[in-house]
Amino acid sequence: MARQEKETGGVEWRITLGDGSSKSLVPETGPVSRVWMGLKSLIAGFVLKVWKFLKKAWDIGVDDPRKVIHCLKVGMALTVVSLVYFTRPLYEGVGGNAMWAIMTVVVVFENTVGATISKSLNRVSGTTLAGFLAFGVHWVASQSGHKFEPVVIGASVFLLASAATFSRFIPSVKARFDYGALIFILTFSLVAVSGYRVEELFDLAHQRLSTIIIGTSLCVLVTMLICPIWAGQELNALISRNMDKLADSLDGCVEGYFDHHGELEDSDKQPGKNLIGYKCVLNSKTTEESMTNFARWEPAHGRFNFKHPWKQYLKIGASMRSCAYSIEALNNCVDSENQAPESIKKHLSNICLKVSSNSSCVIKELAKTIKTLKKSSSIDFLVEEMSSAVQDLQNEIKSLPNLLRPAELLLPKSKETEKTTSPIYLLEVIPVVILVSLLIETSSRIQDIVKTVEELANAAEFKAEDDDKAKQNQANMNRIVPSQQDDDRQTEKALERV
Amino acid sequence: MARQEKETGGVEWRITLGDGSSKSLVPETGPVSRVWMGLKSLIAGFVLKVWKFLKKAWDIGVDDPRKVIHCLKVGMALTVVSLVYFTRPLYEGVGGNAMWAIMTVVVVFENTVGATISKSLNRVSGTTLAGFLAFGVHWVASQSGHKFEPVVIGASVFLLASAATFSRFIPSVKARFDYGALIFILTFSLVAVSGYRVEELFDLAHQRLSTIIIGTSLCVLVTMLICPIWAGQELNALISRNMDKLADSLDGCVEGYFDHHGELEDSDKQPGKNLIGYKCVLNSKTTEESMTNFARWEPAHGRFNFKHPWKQYLKIGASMRSCAYSIEALNNCVDSENQAPESIKKHLSNICLKVSSNSSCVIKELAKTIKTLKKSSSIDFLVEEMSSAVQDLQNEIKSLPNLLRPAELLLPKSKETEKTTSPIYLLEVIPVVILVSLLIETSSRIQDIVKTVEELANAAEFKAEDDDKAKQNQANMNRIVPSQQDDDRQTEKALERV
Repeated sequence: MARQEKETGGVEWRITLGDGSSKSLVPETGPVSRVWMGLKSLIAGFVLKVWKFLKKAWDIGVDDPRKVIHCLKVGMALTVVSLVYFTRPLYEGVGGNAMWAIMTVVVVFENTVGATISKSLNRVSGTTLAGFLAFGVHWVASQSGHKFEPVVIGASVFLLASAATFSRFIPSVKARFDYGALIFILTFSLVAVSGYRVEELFDLAHQRLSTIIIGTSLCVLVTMLICPIWAGQELNALISRNMDKLADSLDGCVEGYFDHHGELEDSDKQPGKNLIGYKCVLNSKTTEESMTNFARWEPAHGRFNFKHPWKQYLKIGASMRSCAYSIEALNNCVDSENQAPESIKKHLSNICLKVSSNSSCVIKELAKTIKTLKKSSSIDFLVEEMSSAVQDLQNEIKSLPNLLRPAELLLPKSKETEKTTSPIYLLEVIPVVILVSLLIETSSRIQDIVKTVEELANAAEFKAEDDDKAKQNQANMNRIVPSQQDDDRQTEKALERV
Repeated sequence: MARQEKETGGVEWRITLGDGSSKSLVPETGPVSRVWMGLKSLIAGFVLKVWKFLKKAWDIGVDDPRKVIHCLKVGMALTVVSLVYFTRPLYEGVGGNAMWAIMTVVVVFENTVGATISKSLNRVSGTTLAGFLAFGVHWVASQSGHKFEPVVIGASVFLLASAATFSRFIPSVKARFDYGALIFILTFSLVAVSGYRVEELFDLAHQRLSTIIIGTSLCVLVTMLICPIWAGQELNALISRNMDKLADSLDGCVEGYFDHHGELEDSDKQPGKNLIGYKCVLNSKTTEESMTNFARWEPAHGRFNFKHPWKQYLKIGASMRSCAYSIEALNNCVDSENQAPESIKKHLSNICLKVSSNSSCVIKELAKTIKTLKKSSSIDFLVEEMSSAVQDLQNEIKSLPNLLRPAELLLPKSKETEKTTSPIYLLEVIPVVILVSLLIETSSRIQDIVKTVEELANAAEFKAEDDDKAKQNQANMNRIVPSQQDDDRQTEKALERV
């Protein structure tokens, strides 16, 4: 059936010839042309794929130009280290080992300063430690006679390589010295084994270490001096950015629920985009952990001391994730098919929007605290506002049962629809009650974030904001009215600009 | 004040001398002894730290002996490759480049077969590609005259290193060819630059490639033949294990809520341990992704084909995480301070426990499906059971308002407490209603997991369970009664043993 329909539905091209008869035009399907067509589509597909790949790469570059700069830095460092080979005097100084300098640059150069320093220190200390140990083993081996020499060396390689490999499974070692353990195994094996051949072992080790130090110093210098990307700064920015996303998600989610049937839908807001921001928070644990690890290797930079309490950022991240989980649950409420009756939603709309806007104000203030590294003067006030809004919401919910039985109370008496409305049942109210309880849960989790950020502020000794600014903020805060969402946004922007 | 209290509260040691007088015993506090004490506590602290570290390492080894085996494998491979140095004929065959074989083994040997193969292929293809390109560049450079030779080589190193570094930022490249890109840069720089010095470039490249191939083959052989750890198998086991944890968390959570005030608290169940199992699911995204990447490199092994749809595991993982989010919300309900009145809880207890036990049965059946790679014959039945329990629960909730006003209906009439109970208000019911709604949400998310697992079963062409077993399962299933939790457990265990 389906095939028949397809055939009769198809279009047929016919050409009318000179003698009046018509001939149907069938596409040429010789084997050569078919191969040619296949080849053409294959090439077209390939070109399209390459084009898409290049487009993607271009987008990545445009999106974060610092990545392009990093690539140029790597190219530069490698070209510079090649001078070690090009220039004859240097070449004779470090012998054939100059390749170790190139290798070091390729392997050690990382995106952030912290990662580069971490790898450099790991490489140098791993090489040194392994070199000394290999010397010792080599000496013992040479004392034990020609016959046992390979046995001693083989056994030591086996034992130390196994032990060092095992150490890489221990979390505390893995976090900071993973690369060092790898280099330890590498250097120990090379020196111990090559010591069996090469007599001038000391010279070899000395040269190798010096080339490695040349390579690592070059990397550290280039990465720190030319457009440096500090892991600490990145971590700080990441946390602050994620907080803003959390606030936007919360706002967008609650607004989306109460404006579900139109009203704001045609405005220029795009809740869809903001809504999923909290997912970034859920997925950023690994990034935060590695950034924290790298940040701890970094020297003082910008507004960060050497002893900046980076580990506290992990706690902040954890409390943010906990908050994001409840926003996830909140988001499901919004998507859920069971919607509360419009009248109940309207009744609770204002107070819920007030709680969510106050909550997101608190998060945004925390984001600002982290961004500027200054104690906020208005955070206590904002938290109090949030708590009082939550209290109001709780009272509202407590009075909800009164609304349920006499349906007449619910709608304004002037409306004509009064008599036609059916009474509201408990079951219908449940979705909105769940939303409210999740909103309250979210705000209690926000207080956990406030606590962790406060701990950071105390540990890192953040300074207080200037008095003028504080007054200005206070004035701005007083202007915040829950129903004026757009005004809020502008205030927030003004605060960020301060 | 506090100091005074401490002093008076302290214990004083007195010794009664021969003449009847007593002398208070004050600890000796000379500078030498103080230094000695400090040193002693320092050493004790250090020893304790080392001891703790070793204890931790030991625990890791005992917990997963395969890690120890992996370490021994690395040691073995390294010792074997050292034979390349020890044995003279081999040594003369591959020249001074034998160190590349050692280096390859150290760098390429990974925990899982997939990771080792991935790194090996990356290393070989990166080296080959870079070698050819470096040859070309070297030829062009040699044609352009002695003056421009360094310029051509320097520029090519700069450009290619930058481009290759950039490619590592592109997600699709990073996932599969990150290490290859690194090796490409390394080899290209080394060959292009050393080509400037060494005339016999072809021999050098040939030797280097052959040593790398020796190293990688050795690694792949050792990792595949001696106690192999397959990334695919690990991924499969991880997903199945996480599902079991999810089921236990769900069970423990709902049981914990309804037995909050005693009853089961003194039994031998430990809900606390099972409860947090779902957190493993929340944090396993990165592991799953890397495992999937590695599994795709692996040949057919055990019950897995080469074309096993590993990517589907990511989808299953995502649906599990989505379910874990709602268990997280459920868990918060249990911890929440607002508890529903006991009477309401008792009223809903049975049906809620039925939903949770049916839901966890579904998850455990899915876990079994993935573990055994066989289509479950009872999953449709179990899902139906779960749906009907959810339906019952929804009906129960719908009839809840009837309970609210006439408080007498709620408790059995025979009880004496009848007249003293106060009527139950809507507000008090909310916690349990939220729990119920989250439970329903969870079960709807479990259906998503069922879908993704079914997709896997179809894509990987799982076979059906044997008829006997199916019948037996059916019989077991029919025995499941929601109130008999322990019986459930035993049934589950029996099923697992099947």
